[in-house]
Amino acid sequence: MNQLSGVRALLFDVFGSVVDWRTSITRDLQAWGKDRQIEADWDAFARAWRGFYQPKMQEVRSGKRPFALLDDLHRESLEVLLPQFGITGLSKSDKDHINHVWHRLDAWPDSIAGLWQLKSRFTIAPLSNGNVALLNNMAKHAGLPWDLNLSTQWFEAYKPQPQTYLGAVEVLGLKPEEVMMCAAHNDDLQAARQCGLKTAFWPRPTEYGESQIKDFTADQDWDVVAVDLRDLAGQLIR
Amino acid sequence: MNQLSGVRALLFDVFGSVVDWRTSITRDLQAWGKDRQIEADWDAFARAWRGFYQPKMQEVRSGKRPFALLDDLHRESLEVLLPQFGITGLSKSDKDHINHVWHRLDAWPDSIAGLWQLKSRFTIAPLSNGNVALLNNMAKHAGLPWDLNLSTQWFEAYKPQPQTYLGAVEVLGLKPEEVMMCAAHNDDLQAARQCGLKTAFWPRPTEYGESQIKDFTADQDWDVVAVDLRDLAGQLIR
Repeated sequence: MNQLSGVRALLFDVFGSVVDWRTSITRDLQAWGKDRQIEADWDAFARAWRGFYQPKMQEVRSGKRPFALLDDLHRESLEVLLPQFGITGLSKSDKDHINHVWHRLDAWPDSIAGLWQLKSRFTIAPLSNGNVALLNNMAKHAGLPWDLNLSTQWFEAYKPQPQTYLGAVEVLGLKPEEVMMCAAHNDDLQAARQCGLKTAFWPRPTEYGESQIKDFTADQDWDVVAVDLRDLAGQLIR
Repeated sequence: MNQLSGVRALLFDVFGSVVDWRTSITRDLQAWGKDRQIEADWDAFARAWRGFYQPKMQEVRSGKRPFALLDDLHRESLEVLLPQFGITGLSKSDKDHINHVWHRLDAWPDSIAGLWQLKSRFTIAPLSNGNVALLNNMAKHAGLPWDLNLSTQWFEAYKPQPQTYLGAVEVLGLKPEEVMMCAAHNDDLQAARQCGLKTAFWPRPTEYGESQIKDFTADQDWDVVAVDLRDLAGQLIR
């Protein structure tokens, strides 16, 4: 752990790593659907919605379209998704409410306690493709005690583009090796490591439910491999 | 107070409004100077340093020079100031330490309690000309419980330029009237009001010590006028 003594700030992937988007969306929309007498397989709905995530961001990363907020990409996907699930006749206000379910995600059971412990020693921030407002509303909803909000919106880019990791390092006034990317996704950590950041991994083996096909274990010798965020805090704070 | 029921986020001026830069710098550099056997009128030093603040930012606001971080503007001023106070022969590391005194400011006695109360109801963020790293280090040092860091660095501008107030409103996904600028400086509030934000004032009559010439009282009918931050919380949360 000695090579980690210079770490000053921890950047967190959020969707799937800190919050459980799948069960949160399922729970939220199930309750909403019950009120509205709309039935659907909301777990499948959540997973299908998330399926649009990388392709939509790739339109921005590839330069095919200018930068757009994740809220707007989510909304575009939603318009395609709703008829696929046989949900029609919704008002604009209904769709806004559904789209903002990404602002109402809840943390995994260990996340809040782990983050509070880590906050006592380190600067903690999301480095997430969620836009600033989405991440702020989620933090207020779920009780995530971030020190600051490092949405990739600030850099008009999406992870794993290097300017997101390096932009976060720069605004913090730190060197890459003083910053640790923390995530339950190996590809995020690989991109961060290529930018010179330290890395920490823990698995979220139920993130995608029955659809999960990867990230059950660490693919590389990340600087820290933990069981969850509480364990990460235990390993980093001795 | 009914016209304020739509307010969702509070933006705070920091230097002078939330933290007491003058006595913090005096205390910090007095201790440092004692260790180094360097004597100076550190209160006069702090006030003289702050005297460079507006003229240096004006170089950026006027377009005379490109955007530069407040840390860099502070450092340029420091190079002029040190010989004026007869302080010579310092190493780069000494000067870095002195320059970072702006990262080590302490809150006024009521600030932390007031901010925690306000945080339970509102999004709270600094909207300050301090750069992101400065504001983050200060928050960790002083215990300021910000939800997010809205340094004007994000907008490559300095208050009272309108793009700072409007940029903060936009990234929060809110309307101007849903955001309240909170400050102990009438000119900051006037600029925010011109952008459509709500406004809250409280005085800090000892901010500049014997040099203080203004901001003893509210110059206009701001939406809220309070005694301090604890009183602001009491007025906004009923």
